[in-house]
Amino acid sequence: LMAPSLEALIDELRSDRARGASELARRALSGLAEAAAALPAADAGALSRALDEAARVLQQVRPSMAPIVNLVGDWRLACSDIAGLDLAQGRHRAASRAAALIEASRAAVARAAEAAAELLGPDRTVITHSMSSTVVAALERLAPRVRVIVTESRPPGEGRHLAGRLAALGIAVQFISDAQLGLFAGRADAALVGADTLANDGAVINKVGTYLLALACRDRGVPFYVCCEGFKRSTLPPRDIPLEEHDPHELAPPEAPEVHAYNIYFDVTPARLVEAWITDRGIRYRGDDPTR
Amino acid sequence: LMAPSLEALIDELRSDRARGASELARRALSGLAEAAAALPAADAGALSRALDEAARVLQQVRPSMAPIVNLVGDWRLACSDIAGLDLAQGRHRAASRAAALIEASRAAVARAAEAAAELLGPDRTVITHSMSSTVVAALERLAPRVRVIVTESRPPGEGRHLAGRLAALGIAVQFISDAQLGLFAGRADAALVGADTLANDGAVINKVGTYLLALACRDRGVPFYVCCEGFKRSTLPPRDIPLEEHDPHELAPPEAPEVHAYNIYFDVTPARLVEAWITDRGIRYRGDDPTR
Repeated sequence: LMAPSLEALIDELRSDRARGASELARRALSGLAEAAAALPAADAGALSRALDEAARVLQQVRPSMAPIVNLVGDWRLACSDIAGLDLAQGRHRAASRAAALIEASRAAVARAAEAAAELLGPDRTVITHSMSSTVVAALERLAPRVRVIVTESRPPGEGRHLAGRLAALGIAVQFISDAQLGLFAGRADAALVGADTLANDGAVINKVGTYLLALACRDRGVPFYVCCEGFKRSTLPPRDIPLEEHDPHELAPPEAPEVHAYNIYFDVTPARLVEAWITDRGIRYRGDDPTR
Repeated sequence: LMAPSLEALIDELRSDRARGASELARRALSGLAEAAAALPAADAGALSRALDEAARVLQQVRPSMAPIVNLVGDWRLACSDIAGLDLAQGRHRAASRAAALIEASRAAVARAAEAAAELLGPDRTVITHSMSSTVVAALERLAPRVRVIVTESRPPGEGRHLAGRLAALGIAVQFISDAQLGLFAGRADAALVGADTLANDGAVINKVGTYLLALACRDRGVPFYVCCEGFKRSTLPPRDIPLEEHDPHELAPPEAPEVHAYNIYFDVTPARLVEAWITDRGIRYRGDDPTR
């Protein structure tokens, strides 16, 4: 059923530890566009069924990442009419709708980043955790007039890559271990993190350690901001959003039958610890009218 | 002034990343006992001056660790009368007083551990951070009827060694990265950590990340206990206790002039986050009469 290139895409999405949820969602869409052009099919109806099945599978590959579920879901809806076209038209329409959603995702990231940069303003010290492309885009807009505290974000340690990227923009970076989050939260004017998923109540599913940063920020009186696109909203409550677990050998645990190592990649930061959500739709503060 | 063996001892104490403050304090005392036996000196007066100077230097080697300051300080006081003895007697008395303090330290650790084991009781899940010999002694008393969540405690990752030690006692261990502290605190019945120093207000100076564990415990309603000997009490307020910083290359930061890496080994957990202090003098709960 699945072409080899789709299997390769599934493997790529499953094993990627570097790119965030938005980037992987766009990669899923670009892979679906390639499949739309190349997947063997007798007619548009067969193409439609094969693509929809492929998309359904891709939606399940990283269930902690709402944008994959949402953007691929939007694409499935947008492609629901291709079965009635001729095959070449169907291929073209499916691919062009993927391209349009990729563009919509990029534009949403840019708007969210712009709003975050405006809210922060220049010459602040910002603490972040993990690597969010939306946060990078916000900091790019402020560079070099921003100082950033970057955590290692272990495993795999994507903060090391982030520190290098920010340094290349001329940004002064303080690089710390994850365990130093509590020491350094109080030295920041604000925390700014991305999200892999926003639960239906505003809870933030993000790289493990984000909850600790939010706790330290509350304790130190430092505002904790989340910056992401609306595509990251899930309709699910936090308890129903799976938290990905990866190979525990990444932690090099001692080998003994009594030792069970856990390598959960995400944690849940409750909405009560979030000062404001910054998205492409604007800024919502905790306590704002939720029906707004 | 300093014999080569004392310089070696200073280096040993300074570079040790594995042993806790109590063990290093006992190592300082055993080194001083060796020095008392071997240090070249014309008479007991010269011996007394040389040993006191050596002890004074040792007190400054790990200023985040009160037991070194306290036990070596107690030894200096206990040796203040050796100048009046003959040389052989002076050597003997200085060494035997070091041995007595080593024994007192061990006994205090055992009493604190016993009190902690009694407070916890069997069949609980305990979360800890870093490796405290007092905590190990408490868990030994409960083994194998205790489950322990152990953090990597990076750098250097002494939790890996702790997990192996506990496993060898037949204890079921859950091994996690430091960033997973927030996820796992809520799965524990209690947190039990050691201390390198207790500040004069009860604040806990311990391996960096301890403050994050305490914050997560408060947020999850899990009691956070500190277990240590009275030798760890400092007369200083938390702000006057230096927090050791070690080689930032332990974090493998990106090499760029814009990146400044920090590798602070300790953090400060305020007394307001501590449910109870368990020492060789008994258990004191937060809110107890402090003059008790």
